[in-house]
Amino acid sequence: MSAPWITYRPELKVLDCTIRDGGLVNDHHFDDGFVRAVYEACVEAGIDYMEIGYKNSSKLFPRGQFGPWKHCDEQDIRRIVGDNPTSLKLAVMCDAEKSDWATEVLPKDQSVLDMIRVAFYAHQVSEAIDMIADATEKGYEVTANLMAVSTNTEKEVDQVLEVVADSPIEVMVVVDSFGAMYAEQIEILVKKYLEYVKPKGKEVGMHAHNNQQLGFANTIEAIIHGANRVDASMAGLGRGAGNCPMELLIGFLRNPKFHIRPIYKVLQDPLLPLSRQVEWGPHVQYNITGQLNEHPRSAIAARGGDQRDEYLAFYDKLTSDV
Amino acid sequence: MSAPWITYRPELKVLDCTIRDGGLVNDHHFDDGFVRAVYEACVEAGIDYMEIGYKNSSKLFPRGQFGPWKHCDEQDIRRIVGDNPTSLKLAVMCDAEKSDWATEVLPKDQSVLDMIRVAFYAHQVSEAIDMIADATEKGYEVTANLMAVSTNTEKEVDQVLEVVADSPIEVMVVVDSFGAMYAEQIEILVKKYLEYVKPKGKEVGMHAHNNQQLGFANTIEAIIHGANRVDASMAGLGRGAGNCPMELLIGFLRNPKFHIRPIYKVLQDPLLPLSRQVEWGPHVQYNITGQLNEHPRSAIAARGGDQRDEYLAFYDKLTSDV
Repeated sequence: MSAPWITYRPELKVLDCTIRDGGLVNDHHFDDGFVRAVYEACVEAGIDYMEIGYKNSSKLFPRGQFGPWKHCDEQDIRRIVGDNPTSLKLAVMCDAEKSDWATEVLPKDQSVLDMIRVAFYAHQVSEAIDMIADATEKGYEVTANLMAVSTNTEKEVDQVLEVVADSPIEVMVVVDSFGAMYAEQIEILVKKYLEYVKPKGKEVGMHAHNNQQLGFANTIEAIIHGANRVDASMAGLGRGAGNCPMELLIGFLRNPKFHIRPIYKVLQDPLLPLSRQVEWGPHVQYNITGQLNEHPRSAIAARGGDQRDEYLAFYDKLTSDV
Repeated sequence: MSAPWITYRPELKVLDCTIRDGGLVNDHHFDDGFVRAVYEACVEAGIDYMEIGYKNSSKLFPRGQFGPWKHCDEQDIRRIVGDNPTSLKLAVMCDAEKSDWATEVLPKDQSVLDMIRVAFYAHQVSEAIDMIADATEKGYEVTANLMAVSTNTEKEVDQVLEVVADSPIEVMVVVDSFGAMYAEQIEILVKKYLEYVKPKGKEVGMHAHNNQQLGFANTIEAIIHGANRVDASMAGLGRGAGNCPMELLIGFLRNPKFHIRPIYKVLQDPLLPLSRQVEWGPHVQYNITGQLNEHPRSAIAARGGDQRDEYLAFYDKLTSDV
């Protein structure tokens, strides 16, 4: 009888998205000390990539109204990491239609960044292909993150995969934006993505959300079925219900290059103090939008208002026919 | 491509363990209104069984110091459910070595109870067999719940299964007492239990704990591999990290006999008010004891003391060599 949970696959790599996805809870207003603590924890824990924010448009997301990690200007990143003399690689995310990627993504030789993650909905795949080409030409590793795939038809997913598999990406990421998917759906998608991209020498990634307390479990499921790039965040910090918690993921992975102690340290400070100021996690309203395969925006609004304890009214509103 | 997550197995039955397992957070001091609210929610939601408490020794657990749901005297149960004129069946749990089962379990024709769940550790299997025989003779459905199976060797588990499969139980339950197991381990155990008991016409059940946020996921995993009896509790109420949350399980199951709205109602009241008085859920200390495959008692102590925010000291203590 084999016991795969005590061995490991050396090719499996972990990306920390605490600042990027977590910034959606506070408009990316993290102070430098917070970002530095996460950076140092990632380095000490042996994590492979840290996604330090978005590189999105300052016209759509005005500076000041949004913190520096919405734009990730080079000098902001370098204030934290210097020349990043570590084995941790740095990533940012660019959203299709929300990013001035042609001008804002610098040539790699002028940047401390290593990776550009291109996030897009299925109908934005043409711009995504342009973004991927641009970032590749500039010298970066590139990933393609098809968002909200739980709302796409199989034909749409096949169409995206066909086009993206031929692009110069390194990783195609399964993204459960609404935290709506169960294990069997993760299995089907990971296998499908692998079928398209593995023959081209590319990897499949997993980015889970925790609406139904399945963020960690679905990440394990993706790993079992061959995903070699997985996302997690410290204390699961992320929009709404949050992400796969890094402390659980690293507890599960058996590669001795990973170390969990620095993660408990960063959970204790500054994640725990942050949790007293802003809320994230799998609260009942997020369970409901996850079950309904809906964007969590209604749940975020409900949690932020004076009706936050009215679970039944929220459920009735989302399931009424009017 | 099949989509099993939108169909259902009619033989799959759900047991609510809110009062029994949840009572471990407050020494079973629930007031009648709380127990009645859970009972009514179970009836309205179409749940199959409600485990209303323990039938454990009042010598070991003195009355007064422990609330009525530690002993489940007939008049206490009837005060809530009357003659239980519903399709919801009622269960209690008896612990080996902690229960005066010979005298305290009444003949079925004198009780409103339908099921006795026999909980035991591997080394207590001989008493468990006697308890199973006694409860069966008295007229009850009986389950066998081998606790903390994650700490047993394969030979021990085989030995227990060999003996229990020949006893008159209806269900043998996979119990992840420490919330330590991952999907692949659940798969192996469910298949092993089925191998022993299915040929004798018995079912396999799943009782998960949420230490690593896998309570719901591991219950799904058990269902996928053939478990037809699964446990959950309202809001995941249970000792330490708690159990598989009923609101997630019922959202997943597609049998139209189940209704989720009554569950959101009972979550809103009285579960939410209770959560402001007592704590349960997958806090960091429970993540750690789960990862270490340990009883959560050290984590419960840490959460209850003034060191509750000291994650790092807790981790260091549990992993030091002295």
